[in-house]
Amino acid sequence: MQTTPSTTDTASPDSAAYTPTDRTIPTRSRERASYDHESVHAILDEAYVCHLGFVRDGAPVVLPTLYGRVGDRLYVHGSTGSRPLRMAGASPEKATEETREEDPGLEVCLTVTHVDGLVLARSAFHHSINYRSVVVHGTARQVTDPEEKRVALDALVDHVVPGRTADSRPANAKELAATAVLRLDLNEVSAKARTGGPNDEPEDMDLPHWAGVVPLRKGYDALIPSADLAPGIEVPGYLAGL
Amino acid sequence: MQTTPSTTDTASPDSAAYTPTDRTIPTRSRERASYDHESVHAILDEAYVCHLGFVRDGAPVVLPTLYGRVGDRLYVHGSTGSRPLRMAGASPEKATEETREEDPGLEVCLTVTHVDGLVLARSAFHHSINYRSVVVHGTARQVTDPEEKRVALDALVDHVVPGRTADSRPANAKELAATAVLRLDLNEVSAKARTGGPNDEPEDMDLPHWAGVVPLRKGYDALIPSADLAPGIEVPGYLAGL
Repeated sequence: MQTTPSTTDTASPDSAAYTPTDRTIPTRSRERASYDHESVHAILDEAYVCHLGFVRDGAPVVLPTLYGRVGDRLYVHGSTGSRPLRMAGASPEKATEETREEDPGLEVCLTVTHVDGLVLARSAFHHSINYRSVVVHGTARQVTDPEEKRVALDALVDHVVPGRTADSRPANAKELAATAVLRLDLNEVSAKARTGGPNDEPEDMDLPHWAGVVPLRKGYDALIPSADLAPGIEVPGYLAGL
Repeated sequence: MQTTPSTTDTASPDSAAYTPTDRTIPTRSRERASYDHESVHAILDEAYVCHLGFVRDGAPVVLPTLYGRVGDRLYVHGSTGSRPLRMAGASPEKATEETREEDPGLEVCLTVTHVDGLVLARSAFHHSINYRSVVVHGTARQVTDPEEKRVALDALVDHVVPGRTADSRPANAKELAATAVLRLDLNEVSAKARTGGPNDEPEDMDLPHWAGVVPLRKGYDALIPSADLAPGIEVPGYLAGL
């Protein structure tokens, strides 16, 4: 029986960590991997889309999609007619508590990546990218509990802009019925990061090639208000800080 | 028998398009999909990493990785010991022309996504993301031809910074032997994009919520030269333009 998460963040203390498994221990560059909650959650919370992988007819499918996090749970959503949602048993006729126990779920791999910089080495071989990524393996299951679904949808909207849920019209019954939500628990998960400059070979250090890092800048451009925005609506405070 | 691509871009004229298939026709929002070479290539060329999906032990795996494009071919690379490369038959003992004919390859889905803006609607339901993405389905096969491998590795480096291959030490025999390259032909591929403001319901237009788009800005921060850069090495022209 699933329990409904509270809306407060249930993240564990900094010292807590996810348990590494065969799938989350990299075959190479193991020193780049970490499993502590804080690192994993920070990478997840900073990105806007994840890449959700699943298997259809034996072949891999990778689709970009929004997500939200509530403690150790990730949520993705979509139309009840979309492929991954249908495959996870999210067709309306199956969306009942009765059938949920039989729901086998959908095996997924959910990956989030930030590209932080371009690493230019003296040798072509050592060119690289500074990045931070999180890879989650697990079984995504449809959320059928109405209260958990509401919390998940709030998290999805607040993931786009924190505080936005409180400043928008909540979903009505029709919209809720058209939206399926999948939950993926953070259990088998790892973070990986590369930082710093190029790792050139000692014998290459005097080559006449510039070497270093090109940092990528991320930010926001000026807001584009809807042309039909009602007069008198100011830019809300949670956007002014972007 | 594979042919070696030329280093010039073999992209087809603007009017050319990839043929849609069951896998590349979206179940929803079909108006967002396109198949012309120009749209697909532009999205691929602008990103730094792709998300490469494959199936291992029946479960999906999605990993971020660098890639390069040469005409209608994508290349990814990695250590010969890395998982996807090993799975595609890239172990050194198999890396011969003799065994290549038997190489079944690795079924992959390669996805590239740009997040362009946050779409804030009056209703929670219509919140969205402006994005451009490309999804490629196909079988990735190890590149064994030495000349094609060289062209592919050049494309990978020039994908990070155009012009960089000519200003770095080429891979030596040891580095080439340690690097496996997979090729994925662009055949079954589609682009998808969302642009513009929120699609609010007519009855929500007078709600007192700000609505519009928060554009994401992308750029570069000041270069970070390696601390051990030899004196007298200037910032090259191809970086000054970033």
